[in-house]
Amino acid sequence: MDNSWGKDGVRVSKIIRGEPNDEFFEATAHITLKGDVEAAYQDGDNSNVVPTDTMKNTVYAMAQDHLTADLESFARSLVEHFLAKSGVDEVSVELASTRWDRVGDQGFTGGHGERRTTRVASDGNSVRVEGGISGLVVLKTGASSFSGFPKDEYTTLPETDDRILATSVEATWIYDPTPSDTTATWSLVRTSLIDGFFDESSASIQHQGWQMATKVLEAVPEITEISFKLPNEHHLPFDLTPLGLEDKKIVFQPVNEPFGDIRFTVTR
Amino acid sequence: MDNSWGKDGVRVSKIIRGEPNDEFFEATAHITLKGDVEAAYQDGDNSNVVPTDTMKNTVYAMAQDHLTADLESFARSLVEHFLAKSGVDEVSVELASTRWDRVGDQGFTGGHGERRTTRVASDGNSVRVEGGISGLVVLKTGASSFSGFPKDEYTTLPETDDRILATSVEATWIYDPTPSDTTATWSLVRTSLIDGFFDESSASIQHQGWQMATKVLEAVPEITEISFKLPNEHHLPFDLTPLGLEDKKIVFQPVNEPFGDIRFTVTR
Amino acid sequence: MDNSWGKDGVRVSKIIRGEPNDEFFEATAHITLKGDVEAAYQDGDNSNVVPTDTMKNTVYAMAQDHLTADLESFARSLVEHFLAKSGVDEVSVELASTRWDRVGDQGFTGGHGERRTTRVASDGNSVRVEGGISGLVVLKTGASSFSGFPKDEYTTLPETDDRILATSVEATWIYDPTPSDTTATWSLVRTSLIDGFFDESSASIQHQGWQMATKVLEAVPEITEISFKLPNEHHLPFDLTPLGLEDKKIVFQPVNEPFGDIRFTVTR
Amino acid sequence: MDNSWGKDGVRVSKIIRGEPNDEFFEATAHITLKGDVEAAYQDGDNSNVVPTDTMKNTVYAMAQDHLTADLESFARSLVEHFLAKSGVDEVSVELASTRWDRVGDQGFTGGHGERRTTRVASDGNSVRVEGGISGLVVLKTGASSFSGFPKDEYTTLPETDDRILATSVEATWIYDPTPSDTTATWSLVRTSLIDGFFDESSASIQHQGWQMATKVLEAVPEITEISFKLPNEHHLPFDLTPLGLEDKKIVFQPVNEPFGDIRFTVTR
Repeated sequence: MDNSWGKDGVRVSKIIRGEPNDEFFEATAHITLKGDVEAAYQDGDNSNVVPTDTMKNTVYAMAQDHLTADLESFARSLVEHFLAKSGVDEVSVELASTRWDRVGDQGFTGGHGERRTTRVASDGNSVRVEGGISGLVVLKTGASSFSGFPKDEYTTLPETDDRILATSVEATWIYDPTPSDTTATWSLVRTSLIDGFFDESSASIQHQGWQMATKVLEAVPEITEISFKLPNEHHLPFDLTPLGLEDKKIVFQPVNEPFGDIRFTVTR
Repeated sequence: MDNSWGKDGVRVSKIIRGEPNDEFFEATAHITLKGDVEAAYQDGDNSNVVPTDTMKNTVYAMAQDHLTADLESFARSLVEHFLAKSGVDEVSVELASTRWDRVGDQGFTGGHGERRTTRVASDGNSVRVEGGISGLVVLKTGASSFSGFPKDEYTTLPETDDRILATSVEATWIYDPTPSDTTATWSLVRTSLIDGFFDESSASIQHQGWQMATKVLEAVPEITEISFKLPNEHHLPFDLTPLGLEDKKIVFQPVNEPFGDIRFTVTR
Repeated sequence: MDNSWGKDGVRVSKIIRGEPNDEFFEATAHITLKGDVEAAYQDGDNSNVVPTDTMKNTVYAMAQDHLTADLESFARSLVEHFLAKSGVDEVSVELASTRWDRVGDQGFTGGHGERRTTRVASDGNSVRVEGGISGLVVLKTGASSFSGFPKDEYTTLPETDDRILATSVEATWIYDPTPSDTTATWSLVRTSLIDGFFDESSASIQHQGWQMATKVLEAVPEITEISFKLPNEHHLPFDLTPLGLEDKKIVFQPVNEPFGDIRFTVTR
Repeated sequence: MDNSWGKDGVRVSKIIRGEPNDEFFEATAHITLKGDVEAAYQDGDNSNVVPTDTMKNTVYAMAQDHLTADLESFARSLVEHFLAKSGVDEVSVELASTRWDRVGDQGFTGGHGERRTTRVASDGNSVRVEGGISGLVVLKTGASSFSGFPKDEYTTLPETDDRILATSVEATWIYDPTPSDTTATWSLVRTSLIDGFFDESSASIQHQGWQMATKVLEAVPEITEISFKLPNEHHLPFDLTPLGLEDKKIVFQPVNEPFGDIRFTVTR
């Protein structure tokens, strides 16, 4: 009976700390095994069925030492690991990695479909002209802390002064007056947002956002108000100690859901 | 400064055990707070910033006693909980729940866009006619175990004889000959798949799939071969004990990624 | 050289007029050809390259006589048509059809992931409780006209008293007071929406929406206000006369973009 | 009664021919009107209901003269146009434009989430190592023709020697042996694909793909075989003559569905 089992959608990210540059890697893995498991189908005998949960754990366990830009090499390590299991005859590992462009020592931008946006509205008397940007993905591996927050009976989040901060910036702003060259102005806003994210330390995503807003308002006098949506795209530390490993605190699990939903408006 | 913070995409599911019927509830929550947090933006002072991670925990903590079909009531409990926090002035909670239709005591079907599919291929000599179904979402709250699997240094999954089993069935099959009424036959296959999932206990998703395949082959003599993709749509137990609660084992976290990827073909 | 060419994402819908029942069919087609086209790759010689645009046209042309619930039969007709072309050696046709449930003689509901929603918001003084529904897909093949609209130099839309009207209903409403059984009330709203769509003729989607709102307000005294988003999910008539066919006005092209975006609020 | 009507998802693209550089612009528009249309809701009187189909036409009509990188200006022109209509009180226009980076005089790359991929598979004896790329969006405004194809009774596509050619490249290739620096090799493949698309004229997407494959095989001796999926992302000419305009052949409608689906493998 032709069959396979595996785990898809295993997302992993990793920092390699350096002087002065941090390296950042991420990938989504799809593991597929084939082997001698007909008894699992017909008799419910799982003795050769490597759990797909173990496959997931293995990706994180091996990422600590093996995940680099050389995706083929990491895939090969995973293939060899699973081929050694009892009852496993064939293994394939697929990895996919989005593109990240470096900004400074600890910063990266990535593309989820960055867009320039505008909205113009009028009731015949006054006209409101807005510029905007969405899908500007930014991530940094340092200069971000979160502590001093209130704790209650349901709080489990530890305080941290060292985390990955990542968001997909959506910002809209009001022009008054509209600048003569909106394209050049838009580029200046984009640069200011990037500077405000990467050049300044922050105590929260709100604090980071304030600095992004400040940079924009300083750079573009025609902007009277700017509004942000800053979803907190979490990269959760993946605890390797239950796997019997020393946890070097460099392996993370990026998650889509749930996500922090931060919104604010700064008026000049 | 107008602003809000919150957590979106918080997915929770819950079983209420009954005799003879289990109830199953699920919802996706979006929590939004407003309050006195300007200092967080301007000075990095987080003393009033309820962490969005705590919001997430609270959804699971309160779901154990409060999540039912009465979404409005659960939302209201959450609103009151957060309104009592220091520095919080306004709260909104949005919940969304997909539709689940009961099948028997412990079974449910849900719709992610169920589709009937076909594929016909020919090289001029022979014609291959395939029927198919995709997006048939099935979930059961009992009669599903997973144990006896191999363990290695990276295995953390506990054995279980009581879990939620859920998948979105994608199946294609070869007709030879093609039945005269393909629509009636397709309905018979669909019924057989549902019976094979809900009427039979299983030791794994592979084992469950085998029983689905068997039901189809028994019911439709014109089908010579059937192939399945059965993604394991995990509902992970959410451990409430770190929140200081008795864990009644009825609250779960549905996750999209990663997912188990199970594929097989059964030939008559 | 192994290669194939084809057209994917060809969406077609069709009405078969009947007494008293109309039948409605829809499918998305994926055509794939293989054949003797190496010269196209290496020399730019297209003499055997059936244009993928022609494949698209053929789906609409043949749908008029051949598209029914028997998807396998329609696929087979398409396969035979393309196999007869010069230089074509192998053909495969894949079709997928979503599920539509009949409501009355000319009405259908379909599932794009229908959801029950709620939103509760409070500032500590007053509480606002909203119920809602999204993803309720409804379509009817009669009792819908659109005429008497203003024309300008850019208007090409003909007036019509006979069209497919389809939308995915998103509605939210305010409860005051909140009913004791919100689940029963939600079901009553859903039924009222369906009745307002299918039981009443309309001169526009706005006019249809008004009748849906009216039905809800009549049925549920606790609802003080209801708001709608009614995207107009167009099924465009596909003109078959350029293909040399009598156009029986029963073949349509469903399109996702662009779509009419209709929003309104009715307060009691 | 608070209400609005409009058209969302109106996609438009445009070429401004230049020497030596063509400019390429694209945007997705969302038009929203408010006005005196209560009679449409309550009485089915459409005399003030500007059809959303007319809104769509207007975007294409005005794009010919007004769409540039200055999105705000184009939005403003649309706002003024609709504000002049009888019974229209308020207008808003939202535009969004993805980022396109220039490659040469007539070429552009855009980002839909470009990814580097790999797949490694083994049965314990031999290991197959594949590299890959997906989501590499390329578009050119010249050097692309399609003619000499077979015509039948359903063919309506005109021959053309001047069209927009756009695709999202998905390619995978087999390494034997695996190069020592897979990251440098991947970049070389990416450059070769871009050169093969932009530096060479083509008579079809198949012909273009052949030249991309050839460039890669010339550049990287370790690649023994390369496979492509090249969806033809159509930008359809939008005929402005029914709108009473001279058609300068510079305005297009990008469509997602249907799309040409071209696949092939070239072995050294």
